[in-house]
This record gives sequence, structure tokens and C-alpha cells, in this order.
Amino acid sequence: MYKGKARAYTNIALIKYWGKANQELILPMNNSLSLTLDAFYTETEVIFSSEQTKDTLILNGQLQDQKATQKISTFLTLVRTMADVSFYATVNSQNFVPTAAGLASSASGLAALAGACNAALNLNLSDKDLSRLARRGSGSACRSIFGGFVEWEKGDSDATSYASKIPSNDWEKDLAMIFILINDQQKDVSSRDGMERTVASSCYYPGWLETTPQDLKMAKQAIANQDFQTLGEVTEANGLKMHATTLGANPPFTYWSPDSLKAMNLVRQIRQAGTPCYFTMDAGPNVKVLCKKQDVSTILAALQKEFPAEQLTCASAGRGIEILETDVNL
Amino acid sequence: MYKGKARAYTNIALIKYWGKANQELILPMNNSLSLTLDAFYTETEVIFSSEQTKDTLILNGQLQDQKATQKISTFLTLVRTMADVSFYATVNSQNFVPTAAGLASSASGLAALAGACNAALNLNLSDKDLSRLARRGSGSACRSIFGGFVEWEKGDSDATSYASKIPSNDWEKDLAMIFILINDQQKDVSSRDGMERTVASSCYYPGWLETTPQDLKMAKQAIANQDFQTLGEVTEANGLKMHATTLGANPPFTYWSPDSLKAMNLVRQIRQAGTPCYFTMDAGPNVKVLCKKQDVSTILAALQKEFPAEQLTCASAGRGIEILETDVNL
Repeated sequence: MYKGKARAYTNIALIKYWGKANQELILPMNNSLSLTLDAFYTETEVIFSSEQTKDTLILNGQLQDQKATQKISTFLTLVRTMADVSFYATVNSQNFVPTAAGLASSASGLAALAGACNAALNLNLSDKDLSRLARRGSGSACRSIFGGFVEWEKGDSDATSYASKIPSNDWEKDLAMIFILINDQQKDVSSRDGMERTVASSCYYPGWLETTPQDLKMAKQAIANQDFQTLGEVTEANGLKMHATTLGANPPFTYWSPDSLKAMNLVRQIRQAGTPCYFTMDAGPNVKVLCKKQDVSTILAALQKEFPAEQLTCASAGRGIEILETDVNL
Repeated sequence: MYKGKARAYTNIALIKYWGKANQELILPMNNSLSLTLDAFYTETEVIFSSEQTKDTLILNGQLQDQKATQKISTFLTLVRTMADVSFYATVNSQNFVPTAAGLASSASGLAALAGACNAALNLNLSDKDLSRLARRGSGSACRSIFGGFVEWEKGDSDATSYASKIPSNDWEKDLAMIFILINDQQKDVSSRDGMERTVASSCYYPGWLETTPQDLKMAKQAIANQDFQTLGEVTEANGLKMHATTLGANPPFTYWSPDSLKAMNLVRQIRQAGTPCYFTMDAGPNVKVLCKKQDVSTILAALQKEFPAEQLTCASAGRGIEILETDVNL
């Protein structure tokens, strides 16, 4: 019996991952850049045991159905092949996110699972190889292996597609991200389906691929220069560019809800009133606001004019993955 | 003294005019296709007189300032050159649109002015040449010379850029357009400025130009086949594609307000509930709904669940330009 437990933090892309070049290996079409955050994380324990007859997934205390378990099982089989073990496993995972926040937890979830497996089976993976492994579970999970600013190098094979930390002299400690959580009655297009439809059909996808490398370069330069305005501007522009691609898809779709637009307008207004802050959005209606830590209270006060406090959550830069327990051969 | 008066109706593009190839001649980057509507129109009287010492513009009974008059004056000078007259003119123009609708009236306004000048100065312009003249005042005005479905052939010179009626067997008489008028506190980016910024800087503008000819072809085929679903789908997709280009501009911007998105979602819901209808938007927050005339009351009832009746206006297909008066040498 092998047991391991790890904690991994979520990350939000400033330069977006949007589109897969290889579905099975989860190789992305473009490099992306993210900030790992401390406020939302997943703790996952995995126990491989000879007594199990199948893989089992418990998420937030609830036994999951076969469909939810299947995705995890595919990942576990990959790990079993690497480690040359045949035991089935029980995965016990706890997401630490605000109730009903509806924030995607697959990045922190799959990173934590990769870390827990690494610990349990004594794989001794380097951070780079752990990032590669996490990527196989969920693309953006490869970035949650690291803290602070992280770049996912797209690569062109399983071996060359992984994330690494961007040197920043700890500048991220001066920054924060405010989450504006937005309820939406719309039927969701999943991140996976949205990407696929966009890559396959959007007349704007070529423009996205052509210009995102420039955005990435500008963002990295801004991090090197600790230039918040440039980092904010390119973050906001790149996010809008990602969302524009969905409007050119066939059929077109959007992740925006009316309140998303209200939140984006409000962020622009706060900025025009003199407090620097910039928004980004992912494959859902929530709006995330990149700002300086010193401005958090000013921005929260301004946001509360239109959004109740319970829809607002603030995060600071987070750490990389942490191993919480390793017990081999209990 | 020469006097003429004309009425022209507004038109809404189903395949959008978005971007100029030549600013002075107002040659567009792509062909567009519109539906002329009966609900909003402009009546304009022009009097050229030897007694005037400058051009004067009266709009809805209000004498306009020099800036507003200048645009008209530039157009009048073009007309004077064509007609070889030197008299200044008084332009008296009345817009028939719902109060505070905020609907752009430049299409009907400049078409009516071109028609009034044609009548006053006895220019005897063909519809084609009248369309060319109206184009010089405001691009989309060239389409308001004609009723029903109209295509603006972009051309590559003043002589070759003009609109013409698309044969439709009067199918447009079965159709209607509902306007959802949306108030917006946002500072506007004018249609002209938005186009310019997009053409100059949007990474998605090439994708727009590449794919709009296919949309146009599909729309014309749908009109020929009286295929409402196809016409609606391509209308909605082309409008969203136009708005996506603004998100790729530098800096990015949008004409959408939260209520625009609410209206678009509602139209999708009405459609999913079984009543065919499709939205389009121009350079502002209003949402226009293309539907069959037989479904107007069903759709209006559904829209009124979220929008008050005074924000809803319905239009049918409209006629081409009408000459109301001609009095030469009073």
C-alpha cells in the first residue's frame, strides 16, 4: 500500500492557454503565462492498495460517479505505467474554494493529484517532470507546480511541453488578484469544448496564434521591469482577444454574462479614476482583477458599489506544490 | 432659388460595413448587405439661394452649430461642384425616430439630403448615381436609396462603389425587425472612430475581411431561397464577428453594454423555445432582432419579460428614397 498527499494552488493565466495542438498529450497551441494564487487550492490524498478492485474518487467528501472517476482513472493508469505498479487507488480530494464560486479547480486538482502520486509511489520526479505529468491530467495544471509567475512552454512533444517559474525578484508579492464571482443561468460551454470549437472553426483563431507570442514577450518584459501598467494592459488585451475568438466560432458563443460586462466596465472606471487595475476572464463568467496589493481595499470598496461583498474574494500570489504526506508500505 | 425635399428610410446591415479602404471617397473594405426599414426615416428639405451667405443646418427644428454644419457643408460643396451652382443652402431635416432611441440617423439623413439636392438642382441622377452621391455623405447612406434587401458593392473607385437592390420576390414583406433600445452610460466610440481603430490595429481585422465574402454569399443565397434560418444564422454570426474585431483592437473596446448581452441571451432563449429570431448589433448598445412578421407578437411578449415596452420598437421592410417636393426657380 502506497500513500501520498499534496496541496496545489490554482493559477490564473495572464496570457491565456487557448487551444490544443495534441488532444491526447495535451500539448497547447501557444505558450501561456500565469500567476499562481494562494486563496484557492486543492489537497489530494491518494492510496494505492492491493485490496482495491477499482479506482475510487471522493471529492469534497462525496463519492463520485463513474464518469467523474474515469478521467482520474485514465490519469492513474498513466502513473501506474510510469511506476510499474498495478494497484488501484482511492483518491480523496478537497477543494478549498469559496462555496459556489464555480471556479475551475482542475488546475489545482490535477496538480495536487500528480504531486500525491509522485509522493506515494516515490517517483522522485523533478519539478519539470512533475509539471509534464500534471499536464497530462489537465493542461493548466502543469503551471500549478510552481509559485508566482509561471510560463508554460508549449513544446512539441510530451518531453518538451512543461511549465517553469519566471524569475521575478518576488515582485508578485506586491500584487493581488480580486475575484468577482458571477452567477450565471446560461448553459455552460466547457473550457475543453470551447477550445475545440474555436480551434476548429473560428476565423479569428489564426490571428490569436499569430499575435499571442508578442503578448507573451511583452508580459515577460513587464515582469522583468516590474512594470505594472504594461503587465496589466497586455493581460487585459490578451484576455479580450481570447474571448473574441469564440465570437468567430461556428456556431459563435460567449462565456460572458451581463454581469461580466458590468464588472469589466467597473474595472475600467476604477482605473480611469486613478487606481491601476486590469481584468481578465477565463472560460466562464467570473471576472478577475489584477492589481497592486496596496490598492486592494480601494478597489474592493469601489466594486462593492455594484457587487455584494460575498461575490468578491481576494487572493495573493501563491506558492508551488507542497507534499503533505508520504507513507510508503503502511 | 432651388428647392427640393426627400424622405429616406434607415437601413440595418445584416452583413456589416466595417472599415474604409478610402476615407475621402468612403470606399468600404468589404461588400455589405442591408434591409431598409419603414419605422425610422428622415425628411430633408434643401433650399439653395443666392441670398444666403453660408450653409445652414436645422435638425429637428434646432439650428445646428458650426461643427455639425461643416459635415453637411462639405457634402453640399460636392453637390455644387456637380451642378455647377454657387449658392449656399439651408438644410432643414427632421428625423422620425423614437425619442431618445439613440439610433444612428446618418444613413437615412444623408440619403435624404442627397435625394433633396438631386431634386432641387434637377440633377436627374439615376438611382445608382444617387447611391454614389449619398455614399460620399455617409457610407451606409448609399444603401438607403433602395428598399428591401440591398447590397453595397464595395468597388474600387468613386464610380464603382454603390448599392443596388437584391431581387427577393418581395420576401422582405414577410419579415420584421424589432429594436431593443438600450440606454448606456458608457462613453461612446463613434462608428467612424471604431472602424478606424479596428482597421489600423485589430489582429482580427484580416480574418474579418477574409470571411465576410462567404457570409455575404450565404446571405444572398438565403434571400434567393427565402431560407429564414440561414439568413438569420449568418446575420447573427456576422454581427458577432464584427464586434469581435473591436476586442482585438489596440486598445481594445466594445460597443456592448450589460443589457446588450441580456438582450442577446434572451433572443437565443426565444429561439431555443421554438420561435425563430436572430440578433444583430451595430456601433452602439442597441440590439436588433430579425424575425418573421407572423412571430412579432410572440417575440415582443417574450422580450417584455425583461425589457419595458417603451424600449421596444418594431419595423417592417421599407421603401427606397421618395422625392416629396421639387420647386426650381421659386
